[in-house]
Amino acid sequence: MMQEYLQSDYPLDNMYATEEWITENQTLLRKKKLTAVEVTTRELEQISSLTTPNKVVALAKMQAIPSLKAMESLLVKGLHLALENIQDPGNLGTIIRTADWFGVDSIICSEDCVDAYNSKVVQATMGSLARIKIYTTELSSLFEKSPLPVYAATLEGENIFNQKLLKDAIVLIGNESKGISDELAQLAHKKISIPRFGKAESLNASVAAAVILALFRKG
Amino acid sequence: MMQEYLQSDYPLDNMYATEEWITENQTLLRKKKLTAVEVTTRELEQISSLTTPNKVVALAKMQAIPSLKAMESLLVKGLHLALENIQDPGNLGTIIRTADWFGVDSIICSEDCVDAYNSKVVQATMGSLARIKIYTTELSSLFEKSPLPVYAATLEGENIFNQKLLKDAIVLIGNESKGISDELAQLAHKKISIPRFGKAESLNASVAAAVILALFRKG
Repeated sequence: MMQEYLQSDYPLDNMYATEEWITENQTLLRKKKLTAVEVTTRELEQISSLTTPNKVVALAKMQAIPSLKAMESLLVKGLHLALENIQDPGNLGTIIRTADWFGVDSIICSEDCVDAYNSKVVQATMGSLARIKIYTTELSSLFEKSPLPVYAATLEGENIFNQKLLKDAIVLIGNESKGISDELAQLAHKKISIPRFGKAESLNASVAAAVILALFRKG
Repeated sequence: MMQEYLQSDYPLDNMYATEEWITENQTLLRKKKLTAVEVTTRELEQISSLTTPNKVVALAKMQAIPSLKAMESLLVKGLHLALENIQDPGNLGTIIRTADWFGVDSIICSEDCVDAYNSKVVQATMGSLARIKIYTTELSSLFEKSPLPVYAATLEGENIFNQKLLKDAIVLIGNESKGISDELAQLAHKKISIPRFGKAESLNASVAAAVILALFRKG
């Protein structure tokens, strides 16, 4: 995961690693013009909150959140994912990783989503946090002005299998148990639903996001 | 979740619940010809390993695993999911829930998968374990005799977006980090892959299973 950060544009401030790790990753470190401070495994255990043994720790600043105005200018083309009130860090991390796989241009979180820099989220992203642009904003203001159509995933939406899915769009995924709020559902241009063939009451939020992104990419 | 078990065919042996829960669920209990033993919330806390408060506990037998011969006779039509060495209980639980959503006819686990009756799996299935048939067997013997084609999900497979996906098939998903073993990959009739548009190294196993099942159902 740390190697993915070193290969990305994400700025890292300080690094602390074992002698072995520094030796193995010298080329990568040099490319990024970083020097890692050598520490022992015991010291790493004391620094980190992880229970599994690790060889390296880095300090990095969170990405600055652009203004709503700047964000609007980004949302004129491409595929974007909007998340309302996603609470489970594992879900958010998996969604970020999946969005990275499907080459989503940005993720826009509502202000009540779990923090994208929560340590459980960071781990579940498997390094994708280094590449994906994540913004936090009030989604209703953004949707009101959005030039891109917003597709809201709801249990009562139209069967996504029969829809023509535009290349440039925003996909909205809601809270794990409550789904999308009425306010945002009303602002969406289209409500879509993954058809159910069996009897489960719902799909996990990260699973629903993945299926919808795949279908958008298939077109 | 317990209501889903009561509405399913899954046999429950003993139930222990609060007075309130018993009153609220009398119709369901009567239908299933079950009597719940009344216990206090404090007693439930002592019985259960869950940290969140709950109102009911049930004892149920694990489903009997049919013989390989009986299993073969089931695998002549329909959509089935085979899992090799899935280790994370959350992943297995989410896969079971997703399989239930997409109306998968059965799930066949390799012998080195995490136990489907692990308490974390049971919780992540959100009740779907009551409805989905889950078998455990040596997958290679089964695939050798399978009249249904086996589609193996690998990073090097053919782009699934361009494939004609048969209605009757077995979808094989491999281990979270190692993927599908060479032995099983060789026995598969087709290797398929979810195309990557971004830079993530891989997809979560439960996410990959969901995307592939959705595409099979879309046809």
